[in-house]
Amino acid sequence: MKITCAVVQCRVEPDRTRQRERVRGFLEEARAAGARLVLLPELVFDPYPAQCARPEGHARAEPVPGPTTAWLGEECRRLGLTAVTSLFERRLAGLGHNTAVVLDARGRLVGRYRKMHIPDDPNFFEKYYFAPGDLGFVPIRDGDLSLGTLVCWDQWFPEAARLMTLAGADLLLYPTAIGWDPRDPQPVRRRERDAWELVQRAHAVANALPVLVANRVGHEDDPSGASAGLDFWGGSFITGVFGDMTAAAGADEETVLLATLETEATEEQRRRWPFLRDRRTDAYGALVVRALPSAEDPDGASTSLETGPSPPSSR
Amino acid sequence: MKITCAVVQCRVEPDRTRQRERVRGFLEEARAAGARLVLLPELVFDPYPAQCARPEGHARAEPVPGPTTAWLGEECRRLGLTAVTSLFERRLAGLGHNTAVVLDARGRLVGRYRKMHIPDDPNFFEKYYFAPGDLGFVPIRDGDLSLGTLVCWDQWFPEAARLMTLAGADLLLYPTAIGWDPRDPQPVRRRERDAWELVQRAHAVANALPVLVANRVGHEDDPSGASAGLDFWGGSFITGVFGDMTAAAGADEETVLLATLETEATEEQRRRWPFLRDRRTDAYGALVVRALPSAEDPDGASTSLETGPSPPSSR
Repeated sequence: MKITCAVVQCRVEPDRTRQRERVRGFLEEARAAGARLVLLPELVFDPYPAQCARPEGHARAEPVPGPTTAWLGEECRRLGLTAVTSLFERRLAGLGHNTAVVLDARGRLVGRYRKMHIPDDPNFFEKYYFAPGDLGFVPIRDGDLSLGTLVCWDQWFPEAARLMTLAGADLLLYPTAIGWDPRDPQPVRRRERDAWELVQRAHAVANALPVLVANRVGHEDDPSGASAGLDFWGGSFITGVFGDMTAAAGADEETVLLATLETEATEEQRRRWPFLRDRRTDAYGALVVRALPSAEDPDGASTSLETGPSPPSSR
Repeated sequence: MKITCAVVQCRVEPDRTRQRERVRGFLEEARAAGARLVLLPELVFDPYPAQCARPEGHARAEPVPGPTTAWLGEECRRLGLTAVTSLFERRLAGLGHNTAVVLDARGRLVGRYRKMHIPDDPNFFEKYYFAPGDLGFVPIRDGDLSLGTLVCWDQWFPEAARLMTLAGADLLLYPTAIGWDPRDPQPVRRRERDAWELVQRAHAVANALPVLVANRVGHEDDPSGASAGLDFWGGSFITGVFGDMTAAAGADEETVLLATLETEATEEQRRRWPFLRDRRTDAYGALVVRALPSAEDPDGASTSLETGPSPPSSR
């Protein structure tokens, strides 16, 4: 199956009506270029809310389905394409999620994924706003395609990519909002962005799946004034099944990346390098623990039920 | 803790006595340059045995401990360094493993790791020779250092790197023997080698650990004559905790790479990007299954005990 995909890299306008108009423009541009699947950045309709933790930051949360999925669904129906982004989902009073949504070419909300890994570090205080996802790592079906939709911080966790793979994902998609502290010097910036790119390209390699990443660009102030804000670092990209860069964006530009992916490449690559055949499912039990006792107490007993006995101290 | 490490990238001489002399030379070179920990390629004392599956390929298997660990231990004692490689371990008649060994600066065999993921594809018919490891993913202690010693094919599996991390590894080490089919064109070679490098650098990123990889170089014939043999692709490297390349070798040269690593970098990096804090151990249960039923039967029920219910088909 061939699918032409687009990744939108853009700034976010604080005025929501204007931001919708801008998003519409990118969707139209993607469609005109032949895309049937469009990935937008994380929380694309709002300034990034989690630079600081304050009650006002919840103001733009809304139900899913809700006004934004209705609007986006209508655009998808009109243009005949599927769109993926994330929204600040208001589930109950004081209970929110960072929720990826998929709107299909008939305008239907065909699935949602609630961000499972929630960051919490300077300028990314998401644990205050978003409860950890409770829907597991389940791809969202769009016709014949199975979308491994994850969100931003999930991108650092090989477990998430693998679980989507084992559940049959054809693609991995990461709507993202990540950036630099403007005070960080260039070498630090470069090292961070390189690590971010590396770890996601490696999900493509380990799972023989294309990876699509859409990030924001531009500066957004910290509403609390406590920090210098965030410079979103762009660098959106689309890879093939070798983690090879099919399309990549710069650090500042608003742009629409395009790639035509063939799902047959996964079959071919997995026959060549059959990693899934060789996974040691009998010996992975400790992946569900936080840390192994032997690590916490290196001088203590290192025998673990999950991993079997420690190796003999020979000689 | 500061540790100066060396990675040896070399050819393999079929004559074992001559190969020992060559290995001794590299160990001396590494020690003279200040290294206290030296990583050698996989099965460094023998031509790669698994290009074809035939009984004679077992000829060089030997017990661990055995003559080679005794010889290597003596070199380590003499030079005052720790060495890591893998050997074809003969455990019983007809029962072999690809076993990583660690010989410390006092000449002792301080631990072994039996390769857990065993490849089997053209020119790498290891399943014929090596039974899958039965010691789990347990780092090997060398004084204050915890060595996450894995072997070659393990390098494609994020699970292995993660399990070594959860068990307290300070470094990830991959003795390796990987190469190209000499008939493959340059773009295929490049794509394969890039993917191999990417996936291992990403283990550094995801786990905030340095990664050391030692590969062979040079051509080795397929003893069966059925293929064109293997061109080992070199490309050995040492990364920092961002997956940044601290030292890297070319595709053909025999060389000794050096790097001084600080284990404190891991602490600092994990405070900055606290991935281990946010792992969803409650939702990783499906990592111990081979594939999820929903993937095999996309039209069937996708509810899984391990991942929780499938997301609602909203609207």
